[in-house]
Amino acid sequence: MAKRSSVEYAACPIARSLLALGDVWTMLILRDAFLGRRRFGDFQKSLGLAKNILSSRLKKLVAHGLLTTVPATDDSAFRDYVLTPKGRGAFPVLVALRQWGEEFGFDGEQVPTRLVDRANRRPVQRLQLLAEDGRKLKLGDTEVIAAS
Amino acid sequence: MAKRSSVEYAACPIARSLLALGDVWTMLILRDAFLGRRRFGDFQKSLGLAKNILSSRLKKLVAHGLLTTVPATDDSAFRDYVLTPKGRGAFPVLVALRQWGEEFGFDGEQVPTRLVDRANRRPVQRLQLLAEDGRKLKLGDTEVIAAS
Repeated sequence: MAKRSSVEYAACPIARSLLALGDVWTMLILRDAFLGRRRFGDFQKSLGLAKNILSSRLKKLVAHGLLTTVPATDDSAFRDYVLTPKGRGAFPVLVALRQWGEEFGFDGEQVPTRLVDRANRRPVQRLQLLAEDGRKLKLGDTEVIAAS
Repeated sequence: MAKRSSVEYAACPIARSLLALGDVWTMLILRDAFLGRRRFGDFQKSLGLAKNILSSRLKKLVAHGLLTTVPATDDSAFRDYVLTPKGRGAFPVLVALRQWGEEFGFDGEQVPTRLVDRANRRPVQRLQLLAEDGRKLKLGDTEVIAAS
């Protein structure tokens, strides 16, 4: 494991996000939570993940405040994992990952699933970064500056 | 290491993205490339990362087609790492991570940097998922369906 000191205390909001999210399994658990999964067994079945790994990633998501546990809806002794506002706030991250995967991850194969508007089942628009006045911005149109 | 078979061949575009991007260092190298860094030594200085780790992550980014190497601009024997269209295409992912970090990563502290419009140094808008007809969509307004 490389030392993380330079990242851990970094001023960068991206680095701070990755401290909570920077792991394949963590992101896929979050994806599953967005898809409505909330039971340990359902995450496990979906991801084919060893129990100890799943357990540690769920604990990390709870510790970072993205998931919280609630009594299971079926009155069993189980606890369900549900998204907090902070967890739901990561929705654009997952959408951006999906859209990048759709564009670059399938090499011409058909993308087997799509994210649609529930109201009419039409595909959603691509995320687009906009200036304050609504102009579309690309990478080269932006810069990172110190906050004043 | 958990077995990745269920992810590796997954139909999910998010899973496919994470195969290329799902690692803290990989994402931070990409961040640095977006900020204009292109030299091995510059990445190393920025990230405080062991050479072997940095080298393996750069190789992964080249293998996945996000970076490519070109002769160094200073006519030295070094190679620079520059973003490909696929790499530049991940810009919204990094913006989404930044904006989530800005909102949830600082617990009331001032966020020390900001992403601005280069034209006027005004902050950019938050990424917003839109329906085909321009309505704003939240998580609950969307669903994932099989492609027809």
